[in-house]
Amino acid sequence: MKRENESSASRRFFLKGGALIAAAAASGSSAIAAKPENQAPNVPDWSKTLGDGVAVRAYGKPSKYEAHVVRRDVEWLTASRESSVSFTPLHEIEGPITPNSLCFERHHGGIAEIDPADHQLMIHGLVDKPLIYTLADLKRMPRVNRVYFAECAANSGMEWRGAQLNGCQYTHGMIHSLMYTGVPLKVLLEQAGLKNNAKWLLLEGADASGMTRSLPLAKALDDVLIAYKMNGEALRPENGYPMRAVIPGWEANMWVKWIRRIKVGDEPWHHREETSKYTDLLENGTARRFTYIMDAKSVITNPSPQAPLTHRKGFTVLSGIAWSGRGKVARVDISLDGGRNWRAARLDGPVWNKAVTRFYYEFDWDGSELLLQSRAQDDTGYVQPTKVALRKVRGVNSIYHNNGIQTWQVRPNGEVENVEVG
Amino acid sequence: MKRENESSASRRFFLKGGALIAAAAASGSSAIAAKPENQAPNVPDWSKTLGDGVAVRAYGKPSKYEAHVVRRDVEWLTASRESSVSFTPLHEIEGPITPNSLCFERHHGGIAEIDPADHQLMIHGLVDKPLIYTLADLKRMPRVNRVYFAECAANSGMEWRGAQLNGCQYTHGMIHSLMYTGVPLKVLLEQAGLKNNAKWLLLEGADASGMTRSLPLAKALDDVLIAYKMNGEALRPENGYPMRAVIPGWEANMWVKWIRRIKVGDEPWHHREETSKYTDLLENGTARRFTYIMDAKSVITNPSPQAPLTHRKGFTVLSGIAWSGRGKVARVDISLDGGRNWRAARLDGPVWNKAVTRFYYEFDWDGSELLLQSRAQDDTGYVQPTKVALRKVRGVNSIYHNNGIQTWQVRPNGEVENVEVG
Repeated sequence: MKRENESSASRRFFLKGGALIAAAAASGSSAIAAKPENQAPNVPDWSKTLGDGVAVRAYGKPSKYEAHVVRRDVEWLTASRESSVSFTPLHEIEGPITPNSLCFERHHGGIAEIDPADHQLMIHGLVDKPLIYTLADLKRMPRVNRVYFAECAANSGMEWRGAQLNGCQYTHGMIHSLMYTGVPLKVLLEQAGLKNNAKWLLLEGADASGMTRSLPLAKALDDVLIAYKMNGEALRPENGYPMRAVIPGWEANMWVKWIRRIKVGDEPWHHREETSKYTDLLENGTARRFTYIMDAKSVITNPSPQAPLTHRKGFTVLSGIAWSGRGKVARVDISLDGGRNWRAARLDGPVWNKAVTRFYYEFDWDGSELLLQSRAQDDTGYVQPTKVALRKVRGVNSIYHNNGIQTWQVRPNGEVENVEVG
Repeated sequence: MKRENESSASRRFFLKGGALIAAAAASGSSAIAAKPENQAPNVPDWSKTLGDGVAVRAYGKPSKYEAHVVRRDVEWLTASRESSVSFTPLHEIEGPITPNSLCFERHHGGIAEIDPADHQLMIHGLVDKPLIYTLADLKRMPRVNRVYFAECAANSGMEWRGAQLNGCQYTHGMIHSLMYTGVPLKVLLEQAGLKNNAKWLLLEGADASGMTRSLPLAKALDDVLIAYKMNGEALRPENGYPMRAVIPGWEANMWVKWIRRIKVGDEPWHHREETSKYTDLLENGTARRFTYIMDAKSVITNPSPQAPLTHRKGFTVLSGIAWSGRGKVARVDISLDGGRNWRAARLDGPVWNKAVTRFYYEFDWDGSELLLQSRAQDDTGYVQPTKVALRKVRGVNSIYHNNGIQTWQVRPNGEVENVEVG
C-alpha cells in the first residue's frame, strides 16, 4: 500500500507538477547546456582538499550550516528558566521520530544531573515485597522497544483565546515522539506483588521539584514503561536520565522523569500537579480533573510562519504531523481554503499506536493566498475539532488540552502567518 | 503477537528468573525494610538544588556519565584518518535505530564540509533533459520516510582468518540503521527522461576523493533514495550532508555521500571501487565482482567483550541485532553452547525490510561458561552460515562480505572473549 502511495504521489507530481520543471527551466538552472562550455567549472574547496578524518568528532554533531536548528524558549512566558519550557523546532525536522537533541523540555526544578550509580527506583506501599531497583537491575529484566509521543497538556495552550504565537515551534512544539527501550512497569509491579486493594500509584521524580503524579493502576498494568533509552541511546539529562516513566497517550506531565519512587495505594493523592495545575476550568466554574488522554491533533509544519514558501507558484509539498492518545492515526485531511474543502493527505512511514505519524500533501500552487488547515482522525473515529467548536464546549479559561485545528495563512509572497478563521 | 511476546517474556522471567529477586534479596538491597529506620535517608544533591534551566543546551547532548559512548577507530588499521573508518558502539545502543552521533564513518578523502547553498546534484548522460537540483528543489518533490541499514562490505572483514578483534564495536560496528527522508531516485530519473539504451548509473560524490560507483538502473528504479535527512534531522557532515544516495540492502560503499552527479550510461564504468577494491578474491585466483547485496547476518551485542556480564548467575538478558539485504529478518536463533543447540530469540520492535531488527533472549544463567552465538534467517529462507562453511566456499583471501556466525565466550566471572569454534 505504501508502494501505491509512492506511485500515486509520483503520478500526481507529473500530472499536476510539471511546474517544477517549467520553473527550473525558466530560471535557466535546469539544463547543464545552459552553462557556457568555455567557462571553467566551479570546483568548491570541499572537492579539492582533505576534510577531517574519522572519529575526530567521536560523538557527532550537526553541520555548522544547521546551527539555527535548536530548541527555543519564550522568555516572558515563565518567571524562571528552571521552571519553564523549551520548544521542539517542528518546522526543521522530518519523519515520525524526534531527534534526541531537539526534544522539548519542561522542568519544574531544572535539569537533574544524576549519577546513575547513585540512583535507585523504589516500589513500596500496598505490595507484598517492597523492592529497590538500580539501573543495572532494570537491564537484567525483559525489555521492549516502543515509539510513543509525549505532549505537554499545555501544548497550544496560549492559542485558546486566539492566534498568539507565530510559528509551529511555539504553537505546537511541546511534543516529541521517540523510540523508548525499557521494562514494562507491569513486570516490576508483579515482582513486588500487588495487594488486593491496590488501585493507584504515586510516581515521584528525584529532581529538585520532587514531581509527583497519581496514576491509575489499570494504566500501569496496560502499557506503561520504565524507560532508560530514547532513540537507542541513554535518556538525555533533560528527559529523565537515567530512567523515566512512559505513559503512552497521556499528558506528558505524568511521564515522571528521573523517577525514584512508585508508591502503591488505594486512591489518588491529589497533589499539586493534579489540583491547582493540569486541570481545566470550565465556564461554569467547575474544573475537569484527571484529564489524562491527549486527543487526536495535527499541524502542518511546512510551510509555517518560521518556514515560509521560497517559491511563488508551482508544485508544492505540505508536510505535517498527526497523533492521538487513543490509538493510531487513521487519516488526515487538508484544506487549502480555511476548512471549506477537504482532501486526503498521504500518510507516510510507520503509523504506530499513540505515536506521531507523518503526512504529506502535494499540490500545484497557483500562487494565490491559502488558508492551510490539517484535520486528524484516529482509529476510534474521533475527528479533531475546530477551535470554535472546542471553545463552545470548554470556554476560554482553559490552558490545557487544546487540540483545535490550526490555520496558517500563506500569502502570495510565500510568507506564512498564524491566523483564526470562522 | 507483540503482546504475546511480552507476556511470554514476563512469564519466562517469573518461572525461570526468580533468581533476580533472590539475588537482590540476598544482597540486602531489595527490601526497604533492610534500611535502619533511624538512618537519615540519603538525599542526593540533585534532589536538593535547582538544575540548569530550559534551552541552556539549545541543542542537547548526553549526560557526562555517558562520555564513554563514542565512535572509535583503530589506529593501526589505515595509513591516515582521512581514508579510514570509525566504528559504531553497538554494545552501548539499543533498539533497531542507530543514534545519529554514533554512526560508523568511512571516508576516502575526509569529511566534506559542504555549504548546502553551493551544492547541486546533476543528472546527465543518456537522458532527454539534463537537470540540476538544489536541496531546495529536492524539498519541493514527493518525499518518503524509510528505515534501512547501511553496512560496509568490509564489516567483520578482519575476522576472515580467525578471531581478531575483541569487541562487537570492532567486529561488527561498520553498520548503522537509520530512518531516511528523501526523494525516490525514480522520480528524478523520470523527470530527466531516460533514453531507451539507459542501463547503468554512475554516482559521484563531491568530497575530495570524488567517490564513484556504478549502479544498475533496475535498482535505481526500485528503491533507491536521494536522502537529505537522517532520523529526522539534516544528514550529518560525515554521513553525506547535504544529500546522499541510499541503496537499500546493498554494500555501503555504493551509498555515495555528498552526491553531486548521476551519469546515465549503458554499461558499468569499472572504476577503482569496483575493481581493485570491493571485489572478493577467491582461492582459484578469480574474483567475485559487483557483489552488492549484504546477506543475512546477526550479532549479540550484550554481553560482548566490551560489555561483560556484571552478575555471576541468574536471570540474564541477551540483546542483539540482525539484518538482511534481501528482505526482512524472519527469525533469529540463539545457541549457548557454540552451535550444538538452538532456541528461538524474541524479535522486538519494528521488523522493517532491509533494516536492523532487535532481538532478545532471556534465560537463567547457571554461572558456567557459555559459547554464545546468534543465527539470522531472512524471509527468503536464507540462513546465516558458520564462518567454517563460508571459508569452504570463499577461501580466506576475502576482506568483504563476511556474514559468518560470531561466537562470544562468556567466562564464569562474566568476562567475554571473541573466539572461534568448530
